[in-house]
Amino acid sequence: MKKIGKYTYKLGSPVYISAYDSYVGKLEKEGPLGQWFNNYSNDEYFGQETFEKAESFIQKEVINNVISKSKTLCEDIEFIFAGDLLNQCIGSNYGVRDLDMQFFGLYGACSTFAEGLTLASMSIDGGFAQNALAVTSSHFCSSERQFRFPLEYGSQRPPTAQWTVTGSGCALLSACGSDNMPKIVDFCPGSVCDMGITDINNMGAAMAPAAARTLSRYLKDTGKTPNDFDLILTGDLGTVGHDLMMRMLSEDGIFAGDTLFDCGIMIYDPKTQDTHAGGSGCGCSASVMCGAIFPQIQQRKYKNVLYIATGALMSPVSNLQKESIPGIAHLLHIVI
Amino acid sequence: MKKIGKYTYKLGSPVYISAYDSYVGKLEKEGPLGQWFNNYSNDEYFGQETFEKAESFIQKEVINNVISKSKTLCEDIEFIFAGDLLNQCIGSNYGVRDLDMQFFGLYGACSTFAEGLTLASMSIDGGFAQNALAVTSSHFCSSERQFRFPLEYGSQRPPTAQWTVTGSGCALLSACGSDNMPKIVDFCPGSVCDMGITDINNMGAAMAPAAARTLSRYLKDTGKTPNDFDLILTGDLGTVGHDLMMRMLSEDGIFAGDTLFDCGIMIYDPKTQDTHAGGSGCGCSASVMCGAIFPQIQQRKYKNVLYIATGALMSPVSNLQKESIPGIAHLLHIVI
Repeated sequence: MKKIGKYTYKLGSPVYISAYDSYVGKLEKEGPLGQWFNNYSNDEYFGQETFEKAESFIQKEVINNVISKSKTLCEDIEFIFAGDLLNQCIGSNYGVRDLDMQFFGLYGACSTFAEGLTLASMSIDGGFAQNALAVTSSHFCSSERQFRFPLEYGSQRPPTAQWTVTGSGCALLSACGSDNMPKIVDFCPGSVCDMGITDINNMGAAMAPAAARTLSRYLKDTGKTPNDFDLILTGDLGTVGHDLMMRMLSEDGIFAGDTLFDCGIMIYDPKTQDTHAGGSGCGCSASVMCGAIFPQIQQRKYKNVLYIATGALMSPVSNLQKESIPGIAHLLHIVI
Repeated sequence: MKKIGKYTYKLGSPVYISAYDSYVGKLEKEGPLGQWFNNYSNDEYFGQETFEKAESFIQKEVINNVISKSKTLCEDIEFIFAGDLLNQCIGSNYGVRDLDMQFFGLYGACSTFAEGLTLASMSIDGGFAQNALAVTSSHFCSSERQFRFPLEYGSQRPPTAQWTVTGSGCALLSACGSDNMPKIVDFCPGSVCDMGITDINNMGAAMAPAAARTLSRYLKDTGKTPNDFDLILTGDLGTVGHDLMMRMLSEDGIFAGDTLFDCGIMIYDPKTQDTHAGGSGCGCSASVMCGAIFPQIQQRKYKNVLYIATGALMSPVSNLQKESIPGIAHLLHIVI
């Protein structure tokens, strides 16, 4: 490990993303990235009794798929890092319950997948693990009723609102691996950034400052510019947050227009899918990375990617108590 | 780092607990450990508008106290690991908001303090950080209304129920330190363990199997017995969980009667304080460790301690959906 500048950490050896898998719902399968999602279900319950159990189910499925794809024995995977949006993170707690694997529960809202990848990378680079899993999920129906209104209420959504992705992504990180697999080489964890946004239907605006700050710090630490990368991918800023981030970056002298994209914008088609500002949720960037991006890195379409997952760290209670919405963004640099 | 056996990790160099602080409420101050708690308030709102804001406030206070006690500059502390029981962990998210410190949000229920100490130790031993903070909190009033009933309802509590501790604890872990400070030398993270307990008023029984399993694995890995330690301290099993753990251990041939204690039992007086099976909550073991145990390690009353924080990973929703309660227990070995 080598610290670069003030906020960035370069791993002693690259950590391999040695296997990955995703699982999504109907809307995501029908979206622009649908061809990349092999595992999907048209049943929003995924055959389970409740939306919450459905979320645990898809986490369990992607974990099992990753383990079987990687041909790694379960007992050779030291740690699992998992989290989700549900109160007390029950998507993950019940998702990993049947695995007897040392478990670290995370809450980073929609930044959780990057948080898990970061901590898993640290545990491997620090010599604690040979293999570690990072997994997360979200579900439109469990999120709507928890954060907003019961679905039956049929509430009107403002144009800034985002649509929680029904999906899960899991990656196995390994100390050893093949050169045909994506590798994490450095990362820049975020700190909490609160610019006073209070509109719970405008998460993009709440998270954009954190994303801009983390990217700007990373570029400063490494002396790089956005053009040094094939792709810079934020988690789920959506259209509103994405535009805001571009503006904040340009005020900072950073012009990222050609390479900066957002998983939340990519996953739905604004013309045919009524998802307003785009996708969100822990499962958004996790399923896009594990479904569409890692394979395209393997195909060498992208060789040099920054992944910046963003999270909005409020709750319905903090919102009712008139608190503003703190944001966070964790960055990882992934190459092949 | 050296792996011992299958589940235990020995740090390359001990990680110093170079400063710590706790903050508790009135009931905890009046309890048997009251003399150890310097920071307390008789106001359950801690001067804030709501119980949730009170929780963030005490986290912020202990963090600031630890930073000022340690004389470490804020910018020399790389990471903060924090979590709590509130939905979306708002106690921590708002507690750390004013710090511009790279932040990893955790959810490990009442095991969160041990989870934070473990990840902070890994980040230091792995060379990523020189200093890292672990902090957590809980609050009787915010927990009651979130997990059970509004306080005004005045619900009857069964004898197996535990009382959520109002309190917070924070520790600064450092790569370098003085021999007068407690040191973390090895740890054994837990995996999820669910024995089918469904009674939400009997968390002790849900967590005891996880605690027994983690301790038993650690002893097997290290070849030690309970008598090799001055004190083995579980997080918040309470009287019911403690007795169950002793029974499970003895069935496994482990007799820990003389050294095994529980923070949840120690923090309240069952004769004068109407707390039924004992204390619980993330703030329980965090405030007991940072308030009473670390100072007694410094005084060399205890030189060789196992700290096993336990967590119950359910939510009110999973309980209503008839799910059983998964438990987890993370162990750290702390010496001077």
